[in-house]
Amino acid sequence: MASPAVDFARSNQSRFVDELKNLLRIPSISTLDEHKSDVQKAADFVADELRRIGMNNVEVIPTKGHPLLYADWLHAPGKPTVLMYAHYDVQPPDPLNEWKSPPFVDKDAYSVKGDEAQASMQGWTLPPERNNNIYARGAVDDKGQLWMEVKALESLFHAHDGKLPINVKIIFEGEEEVGGESIAEYVGKQKAKLKADFALVCDTELFAPNLPTLCVGLRGLVYTEIEAFGAKTDLHSGVYGGAAPNPLFALIEIIGKLKDAKGKVLIPGFYSKVKAPSKDELKAWKRLPFNEEHYRKTEVGSKVLTGEPGFSVLYRTWARPTLEVHGMPGGFTAPGAKTVIPAKAAAKVSMRMVPNQDPDDILKRFTAYVKKLTPKGIETKIKVWSKGPACVVGTDNHFIRAATEALHDTFKKDTVFIRSGGSIPIVTDFQDVLKIPSVMMGFGLPDDNLHAPNEKFHIPNFHRGIETICLFFEKLG
Amino acid sequence: MASPAVDFARSNQSRFVDELKNLLRIPSISTLDEHKSDVQKAADFVADELRRIGMNNVEVIPTKGHPLLYADWLHAPGKPTVLMYAHYDVQPPDPLNEWKSPPFVDKDAYSVKGDEAQASMQGWTLPPERNNNIYARGAVDDKGQLWMEVKALESLFHAHDGKLPINVKIIFEGEEEVGGESIAEYVGKQKAKLKADFALVCDTELFAPNLPTLCVGLRGLVYTEIEAFGAKTDLHSGVYGGAAPNPLFALIEIIGKLKDAKGKVLIPGFYSKVKAPSKDELKAWKRLPFNEEHYRKTEVGSKVLTGEPGFSVLYRTWARPTLEVHGMPGGFTAPGAKTVIPAKAAAKVSMRMVPNQDPDDILKRFTAYVKKLTPKGIETKIKVWSKGPACVVGTDNHFIRAATEALHDTFKKDTVFIRSGGSIPIVTDFQDVLKIPSVMMGFGLPDDNLHAPNEKFHIPNFHRGIETICLFFEKLG
Repeated sequence: MASPAVDFARSNQSRFVDELKNLLRIPSISTLDEHKSDVQKAADFVADELRRIGMNNVEVIPTKGHPLLYADWLHAPGKPTVLMYAHYDVQPPDPLNEWKSPPFVDKDAYSVKGDEAQASMQGWTLPPERNNNIYARGAVDDKGQLWMEVKALESLFHAHDGKLPINVKIIFEGEEEVGGESIAEYVGKQKAKLKADFALVCDTELFAPNLPTLCVGLRGLVYTEIEAFGAKTDLHSGVYGGAAPNPLFALIEIIGKLKDAKGKVLIPGFYSKVKAPSKDELKAWKRLPFNEEHYRKTEVGSKVLTGEPGFSVLYRTWARPTLEVHGMPGGFTAPGAKTVIPAKAAAKVSMRMVPNQDPDDILKRFTAYVKKLTPKGIETKIKVWSKGPACVVGTDNHFIRAATEALHDTFKKDTVFIRSGGSIPIVTDFQDVLKIPSVMMGFGLPDDNLHAPNEKFHIPNFHRGIETICLFFEKLG
Repeated sequence: MASPAVDFARSNQSRFVDELKNLLRIPSISTLDEHKSDVQKAADFVADELRRIGMNNVEVIPTKGHPLLYADWLHAPGKPTVLMYAHYDVQPPDPLNEWKSPPFVDKDAYSVKGDEAQASMQGWTLPPERNNNIYARGAVDDKGQLWMEVKALESLFHAHDGKLPINVKIIFEGEEEVGGESIAEYVGKQKAKLKADFALVCDTELFAPNLPTLCVGLRGLVYTEIEAFGAKTDLHSGVYGGAAPNPLFALIEIIGKLKDAKGKVLIPGFYSKVKAPSKDELKAWKRLPFNEEHYRKTEVGSKVLTGEPGFSVLYRTWARPTLEVHGMPGGFTAPGAKTVIPAKAAAKVSMRMVPNQDPDDILKRFTAYVKKLTPKGIETKIKVWSKGPACVVGTDNHFIRAATEALHDTFKKDTVFIRSGGSIPIVTDFQDVLKIPSVMMGFGLPDDNLHAPNEKFHIPNFHRGIETICLFFEKLG
């Protein structure tokens, strides 16, 4: 199907990529306080572009945390309204020394602190654009996919004489990587303003290269930090070893009992509400082109895969709840030896949840169990960094059908429906608060190194995303 | 007993303290590469002073690590020869934000890196000298006690017309906090040069304020770092949680099985060679003025004390081997949430050993057990940061008797014989290689915060130390 919007996008590919690089240069790390102004900068950068291409009512909305971004274009009477979502915040880039090119495109785009960080820059020897990929923090998660949405709108405006084929509302956020508290609050308060017929969420991936994919399920997340306190001050492990409680060892004792060696979570009642996928869904997953050995070798790169026995890899990562530990601040972690019994220590522990598990219920069970496991002489406190439920969206609607048609036009293949083990809490809010279905159409690849060093976005997929969104909206218009 | 050396020391007290502060200003942290030149600076500082007071053959000896310092004065024919030991290196000062005064006396004596460290300086509101104490890293461990030795020699030189009552050799080191490899090697090679009748080691403490104390036993130390490797790169815990191995969780599983909840080490054969203290020694320990409740509240400051049931606190910390974890580098440890399954992680784990346990044997057992506990899909490697056996010195010799007399002159009380849970590997080398007994005469206090924030040295004890060494050497002369 010929589309002047697609034609426009094709003839502007290199400009689109250059602009994306400018967005990637802003180190908008939402989890680090010192980058607060960079998140604001990224919001302003996107807002300026939305104004330039023709969107109305562009608003950078201050919040308690990082700003939200709203815009709309509502001059297609009788046509459906889409609420477009993406996020312009990113994960921290560390470990810095494992990047092969600068995590923010240029060496000087990111102020690195201390000798160690300076030294790590010496490993950044490759260019950020190579092998038809852009390598940068946020390349695929989610600035590249946000920019896909913006560039699709630009192409549509250009091809339709300054108009769009459907009504468009945009809500972009800068807190996706820190729990998305502000957007959740805003959606709750601004139901009328955000009301639409469906949401388009570009923050997921293709199941395999060249395989058109829609994501219809996400796991939820409860991300905590267990803080443990022992003696009143750090103590010498020679003088006090054998008498003083060690909060770091206490955390090891506690966390070691949260999960068994095979990956089964041991928190009482943890699995009690878990809803299994339907038989049809499980059957469809079995037909997906998935080679466990290839996945182990090329994606994970470990000697064996782990996880609950009796469940397939896709089942385990998409539809079984899990528990992980991400880091343990405290004590002495620099190179060398310090014989300290730390007075306090902490552990970042998160749980992924599946449909029907209630984050508050899980958090309550987790907290109670941690307290129960806390050894004598140690005090534990639990801090919650992020909390959101799982969600599964229906596939039986007009919007999903139009999306699969657009994907077919681009890829010449039938779309597969998958879930993702990750979490996009806002999709649940769109469903529960705004009562609209989400189309989760993402163009990342399984080996794009999300949240890891050398994150990338395959450039042809960036362009395919733009074209697919153009076709999708034209079909609905 | 009147002593002109003691008189000289008393009339120079404030100068001695001022000089000590200058030594404390040098951040000679042996465990951190970036402070290598500061350890050298501390060595030079002490060498200059030894030359000034009249010592001969002062030598700053380069090593593969930090320099050693040798000096002698051998013009007391027929008199005994002492080998004086102390160290001028210190532990890292972190956590910086818990210091109430600058860890190196002045705010600008220590180059702190990054915003966080800069912010921690704002908590340094008190002066380094207060409550009759000097607060600084190394105040008591061991620069203050090193300076005691130097100032005793200066006082003796002054009181005895430029001579000393006995022959003196000095060997000071800058690697005590990192395992003391260079001094061990040097002692092995320079037996004749270092040969003496006994060693004086000032790196221990009084059992209680105003209670003269000699330390006659030390625990050994094996300090390791277990490195664990899983996937080839950091992975997103949503996408891969349930399939990818987590090396941080693997370390938790491993370390959780190294010790039971009551503090018993579970490494097979760990206790097999342990030699218990004699009945007489155990009886003497029972007579020491030790109040467990007071120790728990004021020294440890925890709700309960921990450790193996059936052994007293002194027994557990002095004569039972223990295992501690000091820090777990890896993953995400900054404030906030990063949903990462780290590709690698590490844990600093050390063991204190008691007499008759062989560090190499313990390390072999530890390594084998860690390998056995390492879960599938994870690779572990063990790095050794430090290794030295325990030691117990005899009390039935002329030097110990003269030391107790000198202590009686200063404190007007009988000396108690104790052990320490800490490790001074060189004492074992003096005994095994040079075949000389050590007099471990230290003037720290149990609440001096060794290796912890707000380390201090009680100034009256600094002066008592100088006077006692003067009297001790005069008695032997």
